Parts: sequence; C-alpha cells; structure tokens
Amino acid sequence: MQTPRRVRDLGVTVGTLSTGPLNAVTDVPGVRVGQTTITGNGLNTGVTAIVPDGWAETLPAAVAVGNGYGKLVGSTQVDELGVIETPILLTGTLSTFRVADALISWVLDRDPRITSRNPVVGETNDGHLSDIRRRPVTPDHVHSALDTATSALPAEGCAGAGTGTCALGFKAGIGTASRVLDHGVVGALVQSNFSGLLTVLGTPVPAQPIDADGNSCMIVVATDLPLDARQLGRLARRAIFAMARVGSDYAPGSGDYAIAFSTRRTPGFADRDLRCPFQAVTESVEEALLNSLTMAQTTTGFQDRTVQAVSHDLIRRLG
Amino acid sequence: MQTPRRVRDLGVTVGTLSTGPLNAVTDVPGVRVGQTTITGNGLNTGVTAIVPDGWAETLPAAVAVGNGYGKLVGSTQVDELGVIETPILLTGTLSTFRVADALISWVLDRDPRITSRNPVVGETNDGHLSDIRRRPVTPDHVHSALDTATSALPAEGCAGAGTGTCALGFKAGIGTASRVLDHGVVGALVQSNFSGLLTVLGTPVPAQPIDADGNSCMIVVATDLPLDARQLGRLARRAIFAMARVGSDYAPGSGDYAIAFSTRRTPGFADRDLRCPFQAVTESVEEALLNSLTMAQTTTGFQDRTVQAVSHDLIRRLG
Amino acid sequence: MQTPRRVRDLGVTVGTLSTGPLNAVTDVPGVRVGQTTITGNGLNTGVTAIVPDGWAETLPAAVAVGNGYGKLVGSTQVDELGVIETPILLTGTLSTFRVADALISWVLDRDPRITSRNPVVGETNDGHLSDIRRRPVTPDHVHSALDTATSALPAEGCAGAGTGTCALGFKAGIGTASRVLDHGVVGALVQSNFSGLLTVLGTPVPAQPIDADGNSCMIVVATDLPLDARQLGRLARRAIFAMARVGSDYAPGSGDYAIAFSTRRTPGFADRDLRCPFQAVTESVEEALLNSLTMAQTTTGFQDRTVQAVSHDLIRRLG
Amino acid sequence: MQTPRRVRDLGVTVGTLSTGPLNAVTDVPGVRVGQTTITGNGLNTGVTAIVPDGWAETLPAAVAVGNGYGKLVGSTQVDELGVIETPILLTGTLSTFRVADALISWVLDRDPRITSRNPVVGETNDGHLSDIRRRPVTPDHVHSALDTATSALPAEGCAGAGTGTCALGFKAGIGTASRVLDHGVVGALVQSNFSGLLTVLGTPVPAQPIDADGNSCMIVVATDLPLDARQLGRLARRAIFAMARVGSDYAPGSGDYAIAFSTRRTPGFADRDLRCPFQAVTESVEEALLNSLTMAQTTTGFQDRTVQAVSHDLIRRLG
Repeated sequence: MQTPRRVRDLGVTVGTLSTGPLNAVTDVPGVRVGQTTITGNGLNTGVTAIVPDGWAETLPAAVAVGNGYGKLVGSTQVDELGVIETPILLTGTLSTFRVADALISWVLDRDPRITSRNPVVGETNDGHLSDIRRRPVTPDHVHSALDTATSALPAEGCAGAGTGTCALGFKAGIGTASRVLDHGVVGALVQSNFSGLLTVLGTPVPAQPIDADGNSCMIVVATDLPLDARQLGRLARRAIFAMARVGSDYAPGSGDYAIAFSTRRTPGFADRDLRCPFQAVTESVEEALLNSLTMAQTTTGFQDRTVQAVSHDLIRRLG
Repeated sequence: MQTPRRVRDLGVTVGTLSTGPLNAVTDVPGVRVGQTTITGNGLNTGVTAIVPDGWAETLPAAVAVGNGYGKLVGSTQVDELGVIETPILLTGTLSTFRVADALISWVLDRDPRITSRNPVVGETNDGHLSDIRRRPVTPDHVHSALDTATSALPAEGCAGAGTGTCALGFKAGIGTASRVLDHGVVGALVQSNFSGLLTVLGTPVPAQPIDADGNSCMIVVATDLPLDARQLGRLARRAIFAMARVGSDYAPGSGDYAIAFSTRRTPGFADRDLRCPFQAVTESVEEALLNSLTMAQTTTGFQDRTVQAVSHDLIRRLG
Repeated sequence: MQTPRRVRDLGVTVGTLSTGPLNAVTDVPGVRVGQTTITGNGLNTGVTAIVPDGWAETLPAAVAVGNGYGKLVGSTQVDELGVIETPILLTGTLSTFRVADALISWVLDRDPRITSRNPVVGETNDGHLSDIRRRPVTPDHVHSALDTATSALPAEGCAGAGTGTCALGFKAGIGTASRVLDHGVVGALVQSNFSGLLTVLGTPVPAQPIDADGNSCMIVVATDLPLDARQLGRLARRAIFAMARVGSDYAPGSGDYAIAFSTRRTPGFADRDLRCPFQAVTESVEEALLNSLTMAQTTTGFQDRTVQAVSHDLIRRLG
Repeated sequence: MQTPRRVRDLGVTVGTLSTGPLNAVTDVPGVRVGQTTITGNGLNTGVTAIVPDGWAETLPAAVAVGNGYGKLVGSTQVDELGVIETPILLTGTLSTFRVADALISWVLDRDPRITSRNPVVGETNDGHLSDIRRRPVTPDHVHSALDTATSALPAEGCAGAGTGTCALGFKAGIGTASRVLDHGVVGALVQSNFSGLLTVLGTPVPAQPIDADGNSCMIVVATDLPLDARQLGRLARRAIFAMARVGSDYAPGSGDYAIAFSTRRTPGFADRDLRCPFQAVTESVEEALLNSLTMAQTTTGFQDRTVQAVSHDLIRRLG
C-alpha cells in the first residue's frame, strides 16, 4: 500500500502563490484543528473540528451554497448576522444532529450564562464505507476533536470526518492547503465526497465510478484578512467554483457548501483588492481537494466495500 | 384563572374569509398534529409535530426567513429541492438538535433503506419559563408527538413547543387557524415567542415587557392548493408579513421563519390567482397568533418567573 | 378641495420616537431630494431623485425585495458590492429605462473617466392616472430632478414620481418622515402605489377599490448611522414589514422594494444595538406612507379617471 | 488572418454528449437568434437577441448570479415569478438601458393593452475596443436584431453583442453550442468578456493580459425539457460553474450571470433525473465559450487598441 503523500510532494504545484509554512488552514494565526477518527466494525467516520480563537466573541463569516442538498446546520443565522459563534464541525450525514447537540453541550459547559447559540456543523455522506445508520458519533468523540485541536498540520485523507468519504471515484477525505498574501493568509480545509472526473492540473484521471448514496463537499475557508461577511461570502463562492478545477460534476444530489470566516473582527479591506484573496481561495481549495485524495489510503469498510486510493504514480506523471 | 378561549369565541373576527370546520391547520386534508408537553421542575417545554400524509414521498415546500436569527434545521435543502421529506417539528432552542436526531431515528425506523434524510425542525427560545440548558426533550417525547398526531383540533396555548413561550409581553404558545377558498384550504400553526406591542384588530394592548433571552416566531403554513415551491415561498413571505398585524417589532434577535408546504404533489396554479391564497395566509396567521395568546394560561416556571395570560375581558372589548 | 396636510398635522402621531426637524429623509445630513412633475394631456408622472453627498465615491447600501414584481434597476450589483454608486431615482414603470439611461448620461457628464456605473432606479406603475405607454419622461426631466435637489422638505403627495400613483384606494404619491436616535438619524421616502385597506393607527379607512394595473411600493431609507451593507439589508426588510401597518395586502402583482443606504462609509455599529434603528425605520416608513396619502390631492387623469384623496376629516378622528 | 473556425472543427471535442444538428442554442425548437453588429469609427458593439416562441405568454426561467457586478435588467421579477415575458437581449454595458427601452417599445408595438412588462437585458463591457461612452445602440439596432431572429446557426465571435468583447486575453464574443438528451435539447449562447487563463481541455493557453475595464460573462441557457423555474435555476448555476472549465478567474469586477429558460410551459421533470441536463449545460457552456474565442478575429478598435484572436494552430494541438 502506497504511503500517503501530499500532492505537492508528488510534484504537482497548484497555482502560483506561495503556501504558508504548513500549507494548511492552520497557517492562519489562531486557527486550530482537531479530529476524532472512528473505525472498525463496519465504521469509517469521525469528526473534524475547526476551532478559531475568538469564536466565543463571534467572528465574521458567510456561507455559500453551491448545491443545497445536505444539512449544513446554522446557515440561516450566519446569513443574517454575518458571524459564527461556535467552532465549525464536520461529520457524517446522519450523525449531524448528534454532533450539533454535543457542540451545544461543549459550549454550554464553557459559559453558564448561555441560553442560545448557533452551532455550525457540516456533513457529507460516508455511508458507502461506513454503517451510517448506526450514527456512531458520541459526545465524547466530538469533545475530543474540540479539546485536542492544535495549530499543527491536520491529519489528511482518512481522518476525522473524512475517514469514510470518497471523491471522484477514489478514496478521499480531509485535505488542507494555504496561500500567503502580502497582508494575510488564506487557508482551506475540505471534506471531499463528490462525484465527477478527477482532473489534476487539467489532465483527467478516470476511476471506476462508485455507486454511493449522496456525494457532497464541505469546504471551510479561513483568513486573517480583515474582511466583512459580505466579502467572505464572495470568497466562499470562489471556493465552490474551485471544485470544478478538480473535476466536480456538481451532481444534483451533492451538498456543496463553503463557509468562510475571518479571525479579524474589524473589517477594513476594499473589494477592488479582492483579486488576490480570490486567487488564494481558488488555489487553496484546489490543492486541499487534491491532498484529500493523495493523502487517503485504500479503504475497506461497510459491507466489505473497498475504495481505492488514487495511484501516486499516475499523479506524479502529471506534475 | 380564566378559561382558555379562542379569539373568535371572544368576539374577535379576523378578516373576511370563511374558516375551515376546525379553524385549524388540520382542516387541510391529510395534515395531522401531535404534541408532547413537558412541565414541572422548572420545565415548560415540549414538541409539536406537523405530520402531513405523503411526507415520505416528499411534498412541495418553501421557507421564508423574516429574520434569520435562530436555528431552523433543514432550510438549505428545502430551498434547493423545493420539498420537505420529513414531518415538521417545533421545540425549544437548545433541544433543537436532539429533536432533529430523534426525528432521524423515527424516519430510519420506518424505512431500512434510508441513508440520508433532511429533517425540518424549528424552534423558539422558551428559556424564560423553562430551564433551557437542561435540554430535557428525549427521543420518547419526539416519537410520542409524531405517533399521536391526529387531524383533530390541536391543543393551543401552553402545549407542545408552546408550553413555555411568551409573545408581546404575554404568555403565548401554539395557535392555529384556517381559511377555506374555492379550490382548497389554507391553514397555519404558529409557535409564538416574539416581542412587540400586542395589537388586536388594530388596537394596542400594552403589556409589561418581558426580559427574555431571544424571541422568535415559527410559522407553519399548509395547503392543499396545487402550488409549487416558488409559489409556496410567496405564501411563506406573507406569513412573515402577517406578524406585523398583531404588533411584532421584528426585533434584531428574533428568529422569524415561515415554512409553507402543499399536500398536492402536482402543481397547477397560476400566480395571478394567488391574491386569495395570500389573503388566506394573512388571516390564518394573524388569527393563529391571537389564538396562541388567548388560549394560553398564566404560567409560572423557571426561577419562579410568572408570565400573565392576556385578559380576555380586554380582548372582548376589541371584538 | 382640501389643503394637503401632513398626517401629524391632522393629529396622528406615529410611534414614540422624535422626528427630525423636517420630519423628512432630508434630515439625514447630506441627503438631498429633487423632483420633476409632469402633468397635463393625460399625464401624471415624474421623477424623484434622492441624492446623497458622496454617491460618486460609493455609499454602503442594500436592497430588500418584499415582492419582486417590478423593475428595480441595479439591485444585483448592490447585493454583490454592498454599495450604491449613483443617486437613486424613482419614476413610472415604462419610463424606468429612459430614466436609467438619463442617469447614466448625467453621471458620465460629471466624470470623463467613467466607462461603467450601476444606476439605481425604482418605479411603480402610474398608468391608472397617466398615459404610461407614452413614456413621457425625458433626459431633461431627469437632469432637472438631479440638479435641483436640495435638503429642504421634499414636496409630498402628487409630486415627482408620485404624481400619478394611488394607494389603498386613495390618491397617493410621495411621502417622507424621519426619526432621531442618540447617534444618528433615520429617514424614509416612499413612492406609494399599492393595494390593501388603509389602516391609520390600527383603524381601517375603507375606500372604493381602484382597478389599476400593477401596484407597488418603492421605499428609500437613509441614515447617517455607520451601518454596513448587511445591516442596511436588515433595515430594508423592516421597511417592507412596515407596509403592513398601513394596510398593505402585499398583492401578487405588487413590486415592493426597499433600498437602504448610509451616508457613512466606515461601518461601526453592533447588531445588538439595532433595535432602535429598526423602530426608527418602522415609524418613518409608516408615517411616510400616511403622508403620501394625506398630502395628495384628488386627481383626474388619463381617460378622465379620477381618484379621490383621503378625507382629512376622517383621519383627524383617528388621531 | 486565420479563418474563424468552431472549436470542434479544430479537433477539440468537449465532453461526451451528442450535439444538436447546428450545435447551437437554436437547436432548441422555437428558439431564434438575431443580431445587429455595429463597427467603425471606434465602435465595436452590437445587440444579440434570443427570441423564444411563446415569450409573450411567458416561459419558465431563472437567473443565477455568479458575481453580481453588472447590470442584468429584470432579474428580480424573474426570481419572483419564475418567468421571462420578453425576448432576452445582450449588449454593451452603457447601452443597456437604451436597449431595454427599445425592447419595451418593440413589445408595446405588438400589444396595445400592455402597460407593464419586464425586459431582460444582459451586458458586458466592450469598452476596450469600442467607444462605450457614446452609447451608439439605437432602437433600430435593437428592433433589427429582434425582427431578423432565425433558427439558423447564429454568427459567432465578433458579432452582435460580442463584436467588441475579449476574454482570457484574446478577442472573444458570441459563442453557442448544444447537447441532445433522450427527452430534449439543451443549448447555450454566451457573450464572453472575462479574465483568467484560457484552458482548453485542461491545457492552459496563456495570453497577454488585457488591461480592460470590467470583464464579465453573460450566459443564456435554453431547453425544451419541461423544467420549472427552480430547476432552471439549478441549470443556470451549472452554467456559471462551467466558466471554470475554460479558465475563468471569476474576478471581483466581473458580472457573471446565467439565465436559463424552458420553452415548455408545463413542468414535469424529476430532480433525480437532472444529472444529464446538468452535464448538457456544462458541456454546452464550455464549448460555447471556446467557440466565442475560435470564431473571433483579431480586432482593432477604440484608441487603436488591438486584441488578437487565439491561434488555431495552438488549439489544434490540444484536440
């Protein structure tokens, strides 16, 4: 079995901007990631937590809906108030509400005055490789992801909420990347689980199609640029557009969502200067999606189904 | 303590259209309502289930967001696909995700093939009269509301998800009403919990303001008119507008949502004929909101707080 | 024929907040209004221009769509960029594009470098009293409205874009009002042309229904509070909700739009403090709508149709 | 100077679905296209009219906003009512409102009863090669485009509204393509004028960047599949996503819009069957965009600026 490698280490360079030190969403100062992975007994699922410092005081944020299949918890309040007020969690579809409830518990434990809070939880359907109807995610799994979040490079591929997901015919999962601009950093973390024809720097890499129920992509974009919610919405839409670059077919049953947030609470950025941040989003998301594939390993799961990792040899030839 | 009375029985006639036989959302053929009420030990909360026949095969539906504070579960998929695929549940804010998860359980139990489903759960914050941080709603509470749903007149006032809610300075809760048109019925059910100055047929009825965290209104509109999702969205917006008629101030922290659905799967209704359905929505929602108040009883709850029911004597003078 | 009077001078006091010195949108510092009125030969139409200082450098703004019938020019760019970059014009439906083109001319004349600009033009259908198919508005009419804009109290009733409009069964037109808060002013200007049952402080004032094609309401809200586009959108939605307070039925064919802008380019206002600005919008719009009626005069127009002004004697009894 | 060729004739086959007989939007039965081209004296502009039979009785339609810079006339009413009620016109930015007004004239001339109508006019900024501030489009130009519309293959490249537009560093313009499905046809027509890095079947084709004011893309999608407005909105969003396939960078100042309509007035298509229509949109738009480039010719225009056509030799190597 091949050793997971990041796509850049396979010779594939996405775009022209510089990456951050980790080439990860955690390059954005104050952004931490924690994950819980659940495997065995037909399960391949988990939780991924994106925990920005300052969430409790709210941070500017916006959601973009590429295709509104799916169960993104919390989106209407983000639309109205333009902020997140919890960490962002990702998980498998049918566990979404257990995870949201456990996030509420975690938040309530931190502040005895809270009587309302808008949890943000995204999901994709990992039911092809995981016994999704068991809804195995417990509050402990959620709290562990939240409590162990660090600013290190997050585990990619078969980790956390990506443990059981597949994309473009291959085993996929969590991926991340970042880009550095003059005045700040843009980072992306994806949970990839969508259909289409894998395309690496423009070259198609066909796979056996997977007959999976549902297929979706959750994208989290973080930045320390001082953007307001409206501008973050513009970034989030570019995150959706970037899915096309790796071959998404934006299928009717795909829940394609992006949420973008800033760690800076006071906006002060002109729309005419958004060209570079847009490019940074596009490159980060494209590379994060590719990382979610090349860092994943061939996995056998529920009902003995196996999904292959993409061949690194194939990818190397495209770099 | 005064006996709960519907506002029409107090001499107040809202609008000019005829009511259905029950003057309730359950006048719409195939629409059933079930409720679980939880009281005692500082609790005043519960669950209200609106269960339309045919939900499992999906029904046309749309959401309108008046003010997107709040946690309406499922709205993005309703926007995208234009359908509901579960019953609609209402509850107290912090129990939202437990209720959504219990709804998932209930749906999974009914069909072993299901691996994805979009639950629709609305909420308002009943924390003024209920110990909301305890999140006392259990799966049994949810399943009981779903399993006992009937086409009878639903309990109004302090029942189900309205057990602990307050509106316009008075004890409020669940209310319902309906209107009959030439070609179908329009019904509304509300969970009222919002601020403003109670206004009955144009006359203000001042109250002591309640210093409650959060304040919101969830409105469910049902019809058997053959409307598509876009048209149902137009109805849902009128439901939001109707809140003004009873004195809503549409406060910044109010989660004001309406969801409208049709029990007819094949649309065939012209937009130019929507004037009467719009009027039916306006009248039904206005009357349902008033019923939610006049059917409620003075309630003492969490931390010994008491909220008064509106005086029927006052209302009678305005009829 | 009764002398036009503002509704407050008839003893009707809307709400509890203080008005600005003029009780007009022009109480917002830097906001000017100019109008051109076109009458005779079956015409009753015109142009109303709201001209804020600083429009050329853009000002934060947002649009709310109550009912998207109608032809509000420029809304998608306001949504995306969160700004206006021209004055705001109002006119009669079929003249909308002539007016937009004349606004472009006026803007191009002021800056030889401009090769793109997003004009904002609203409209309602004044075809009941004006020969709308003649599209009589010329560039001179538009430029005159723009060039004569002042910070005085704007003419109300049968003036500018309100010359031929009718609302709630009565002759209507332009109306304006304002409210003063601790940290700024909120003002509204309306072009009223919608159906429903006139309601003054809660009391219905029935009229003969008018069999008019189309019926709509354009509302402009201005403030010097430092609000961003998202927050201005929240204000604009309250402007739509305020139409209910005077009896709008939000008919299917009504183009009900509000646009809110701030004269302050640097935002810095917390959402939790929006309760008073919301109230100021609600009161200003309600009073502006009433002024549009009580300041209007009985008018005979196209095809010898006559629409009556509302009786001041009736209104006085409701104060 | 190379002879304009369609991209397929250069050996580039986009996607896997079959094209219609003309590989054009006019393969959709009842859809006609007419164009007026204006050149000389520093002008390179024009009008493109998409004229579906039955527009006067309205047709189901929806708009997708990729980036809401730009002046798409008529979008809010399309959102609300889900229909178009005029032909769709495309032109250069500053002529938009003259074109909309001329469309109104044309519609009024056809029906003496009309007193309101929602024209749909899209635009991109052709000011790099055309003296845009002159606004040279006259009513005659517009009426000619409307009156000469036929079901033949529309002129591509430097024709109509594409006469002066540039995309991805090359001369661009109008392009069209179509795909045939089991139950109907999907066709696209584009007015391409956006920035990015031209990508042909995945391979980048760099160009000298053009320092143009504004850059945008208008996409019209037509089908005879019986889709309702909500479903057409889903198609329109895929049209926006397809821009990524040819290298759009979705720049901050780009007005990227798609409008999709059906020639069938009675919907009856299941969302679960949309996968092929989505693919047909993606392929048609990608090929139409490439056609807009390969069919364009090197053009010298305003201020003696020249923009090169893309080299066919380069393209041929990528087929």
